[in-house]
Amino acid sequence: MPQNIVVIGAVALGPKAACRFKRLCPEDNVIMLDQSDRISYGGCGIPYYVSGEVNNLEELQMTPYHTIRDADFFRVNKDVKVLSRTKAESIDRQNKKVRIKNLITGETSELPYDKLVLAMGSSPNRPPIEGLDLEGVHTCTTLEDAKAIREAVAGGSVNGAVVVGGGFIGLEVAVSMADMWGIKTSVVEIADQVLPGFLGKTMVKIATNDLIKNDVDVFTNEKVVRIEGENGKVARIVTDKRTIEAELVVMAAGIRPNSELARDAGLDVNERGAIVVNDRMQTSDPDIYAGGDCVTVPNLVTGKPGFYPLGSMANRQGRVIGTNLAGGDARFPGGVGTWCVKLFEQNAAGAGLTLEAALREGFDAVNVHVEGFDRAHFYPEHTVMALDLVVERPTRRVLGIQGTSGLGDALVARINAVAPLLQSKPVLEDISNLEVAYSPPFASAMDIVNTVANVADNVLAGRNHALDPEEFAVLWANRNSGEYTFVDTRIAANAQALVEKYPGQWNCVPLEEMEQRINEIPSDKTVVLICNTGLRSYESQLIMNRHGRKSLSVQGGMASVLKQGGEV
Amino acid sequence: MPQNIVVIGAVALGPKAACRFKRLCPEDNVIMLDQSDRISYGGCGIPYYVSGEVNNLEELQMTPYHTIRDADFFRVNKDVKVLSRTKAESIDRQNKKVRIKNLITGETSELPYDKLVLAMGSSPNRPPIEGLDLEGVHTCTTLEDAKAIREAVAGGSVNGAVVVGGGFIGLEVAVSMADMWGIKTSVVEIADQVLPGFLGKTMVKIATNDLIKNDVDVFTNEKVVRIEGENGKVARIVTDKRTIEAELVVMAAGIRPNSELARDAGLDVNERGAIVVNDRMQTSDPDIYAGGDCVTVPNLVTGKPGFYPLGSMANRQGRVIGTNLAGGDARFPGGVGTWCVKLFEQNAAGAGLTLEAALREGFDAVNVHVEGFDRAHFYPEHTVMALDLVVERPTRRVLGIQGTSGLGDALVARINAVAPLLQSKPVLEDISNLEVAYSPPFASAMDIVNTVANVADNVLAGRNHALDPEEFAVLWANRNSGEYTFVDTRIAANAQALVEKYPGQWNCVPLEEMEQRINEIPSDKTVVLICNTGLRSYESQLIMNRHGRKSLSVQGGMASVLKQGGEV
Repeated sequence: MPQNIVVIGAVALGPKAACRFKRLCPEDNVIMLDQSDRISYGGCGIPYYVSGEVNNLEELQMTPYHTIRDADFFRVNKDVKVLSRTKAESIDRQNKKVRIKNLITGETSELPYDKLVLAMGSSPNRPPIEGLDLEGVHTCTTLEDAKAIREAVAGGSVNGAVVVGGGFIGLEVAVSMADMWGIKTSVVEIADQVLPGFLGKTMVKIATNDLIKNDVDVFTNEKVVRIEGENGKVARIVTDKRTIEAELVVMAAGIRPNSELARDAGLDVNERGAIVVNDRMQTSDPDIYAGGDCVTVPNLVTGKPGFYPLGSMANRQGRVIGTNLAGGDARFPGGVGTWCVKLFEQNAAGAGLTLEAALREGFDAVNVHVEGFDRAHFYPEHTVMALDLVVERPTRRVLGIQGTSGLGDALVARINAVAPLLQSKPVLEDISNLEVAYSPPFASAMDIVNTVANVADNVLAGRNHALDPEEFAVLWANRNSGEYTFVDTRIAANAQALVEKYPGQWNCVPLEEMEQRINEIPSDKTVVLICNTGLRSYESQLIMNRHGRKSLSVQGGMASVLKQGGEV
Repeated sequence: MPQNIVVIGAVALGPKAACRFKRLCPEDNVIMLDQSDRISYGGCGIPYYVSGEVNNLEELQMTPYHTIRDADFFRVNKDVKVLSRTKAESIDRQNKKVRIKNLITGETSELPYDKLVLAMGSSPNRPPIEGLDLEGVHTCTTLEDAKAIREAVAGGSVNGAVVVGGGFIGLEVAVSMADMWGIKTSVVEIADQVLPGFLGKTMVKIATNDLIKNDVDVFTNEKVVRIEGENGKVARIVTDKRTIEAELVVMAAGIRPNSELARDAGLDVNERGAIVVNDRMQTSDPDIYAGGDCVTVPNLVTGKPGFYPLGSMANRQGRVIGTNLAGGDARFPGGVGTWCVKLFEQNAAGAGLTLEAALREGFDAVNVHVEGFDRAHFYPEHTVMALDLVVERPTRRVLGIQGTSGLGDALVARINAVAPLLQSKPVLEDISNLEVAYSPPFASAMDIVNTVANVADNVLAGRNHALDPEEFAVLWANRNSGEYTFVDTRIAANAQALVEKYPGQWNCVPLEEMEQRINEIPSDKTVVLICNTGLRSYESQLIMNRHGRKSLSVQGGMASVLKQGGEV
């Protein structure tokens, strides 16, 4: 007798699981239901529809071969029945039935199932503030949101926009509005940085400065108190620090898993509200599978529960569920949190833990920051990439990697190389020897991803006494104290402008002359060595080390200082 | 007492090992010798100097911070003594001395060592043919070669050029001459394909067609018999199949390790002439280290000896040697052969084994070929990438991955993700679940690197009955036999032109109509399904499978057929 499979939710994981199952078991029945009639769409594409890079909203709902993935599509091409505008109200696990309600007619009925798939996704957080229902206040999750925001920005009536939340979606939509529509955009983030949990303190300054340079105001450590309107339309947003005029507000203050249905049915749900599944993506009821934004899977770096609400995770998990529904034994072990985001001139990406996350997890960790070319330095079209490596000191275990770069694909090429190893507890030597593809148009002979591990090795060994660019900024701001000597180790021509601008404070001793001129450097002050990217200053430090002289070398050098918007 | 370290060879590995060691042991002595006085250069950059992308030859010998790495540089900045124009004639292992000869004065002397590093690199093969000494015949290894080739192509006297050898350097220099200088260039390769051992039979057709489309003639299965000259200058090259007029010949017919010195000293050298080292990069004499182009390290896919003459390998190994010279315990486990190369519109990259290499090694292997977007299909700036995955059937072990793409960095991002796993015997599921970074500007939610594993899973399970594009070409060439029915599963508008061009032979049944129109497809012929990339044809095949109908689906679809230069 054919099995009945019921799938609740039809955006990403649901359709993937349903279609995979039907390919394996064409004779069985699949019913997929969703509260909306816009199903199977690429929600991650919304910022690119807002920007105009994607022309038609329908493109987000199309297959790569330009067919709209609507109920008809699934019925005709996939033999999957779709009940749209239909809500699952409860699950009767004992009798294996789902009580459903037709949201148009209000009728309720029961759907029997042999196996059930929970793919309810997530909902945007609604902070407990006034004004969320004003016209012009949107979330950024559904195609209806996308349509409304695009109409507003394209309509010419929006002079100022505020994005609440500086996570991926918040930044992507902020970039879209500012870049393409020239709208004065502000990001308000309650944490002390944008991309909290994803970029470390050094690297995030590069991302933040990219936003600021492109006329996006970034307000961190700032809480939205209320949204005020006029005539029912949003007019301004009030934070605990300021009032910002805005005709448009996008709420992107995080998401929560849609797990009420699961909790009410007595399935295991964790304290964060995510459904607990095993590595076969089964809930605590083996006949009920769940995946995507509504579940937790292991963080393979920490071993603790992780939460990875990404379309890519949903697709991979959906295939695992489809296989297992068909009697297979596919496994989804968890994730390490690989991500990437396009900003203005900079792109950011990462995997695993930031330094702050690692310390919070109890690791005795250090972050190493380097700047380096993304291809052979003699190859004409290179850009300077920044990479952070987070390393556990006693074990030399690599816990995470993050980066920013003008060329996103080249950055992703490095992050992707390290990410798959993170679950196997790689040590520094594994990254030093990492065999990334090399030829001059794509990488350096000693590639930056190898270099960041080598620098970390030198830092852990106490050979490289490093100063973060932001630590440098503090020392430099305090330069009149007379406690520090700043030594530019670049060739004289490159250092000249700063030597003239700060006479007696900014000194130049090129690497090539360090050996001869070391006695010019006062021995009663803290010596700060700097160059373009940190390479010359480290080489200079080695010469000073040989002479028994202590110094600090600025990681990432002037490249990082300037990308961070530092003033020198 | 300070140690004496002698390093023989000063191009890539030698300087890296010497400098790493000196950073760790500044008090010890390092002498580095080389037969040339051009040392520490980026030989991999030669094609980009030939093309003019690199303006000055000196750039290939500069640090990233624009200092020439000559003998003075090493003496002043690294405290490494360089003996240039000096040849190591023999090693007296018993007394730990190297007999050296000054190539200018002819004087010989002895250098005592505590530890010795062999970094002699490799030499281009010289096939046993006449004419190699004619003016205008060059190899492509040294800066002198680079200078000579660039002067010739820039001088305007070269109308035709022949490159002997279709490996990386051969193709890079062919592209450089044809693309930038408009010289009619031919590549003659003795094997049955270019990039032999690196790209499989399907993928290499895409690379080859990229060369041909850009006016580079590619002659494979062809052997150079002699080079003929006039007045001492090269005039033409004669192969076993034709004569090609040429004022310039570049010999890039492979390289051999420079290991005579090691062999004469009684060190272990394998039958291929490569010096045998352990994972600490020690030769059979523990006081003698070796690395770079003159050694063999394990192929971590096959477990057999591998040979990876790449600047990146030399740099990584050099650091390991430097650490070990200083009493450390660094390890270099081997390689999987990750590579990349820029052609014209296409770039190619790979890691691990091709299908042909896998079969030769005795694996029961299959190759799966897919075409897919390199980012979200709705994101405007996508290109279509091709990936091959080589899989061992019984174990589902992934043995290799290769690809071609218009956007090289995006291709490298996928190859780099799989390469580091290859040494750990990954299975298909590891690649299905591979957590590459996702956001629409950089990847698809179900990324092509996951897809190629999923397709392989379907092929192994017998669900996807696939036809390589070149197998398709054979069937299509034989279309008048009446044995086959060709069905285009794209929407009618996309199939229209071919339906009109080949009435009765090219049929269109769009995926959406397959269920209804399946009976139109003759059941007494072999049915060949095709679409743009292989996705629709596979979906159509599943419908036919459901109806008990057999069919073949063209892997990579029209995208691969056209990229291969196929005629339909």
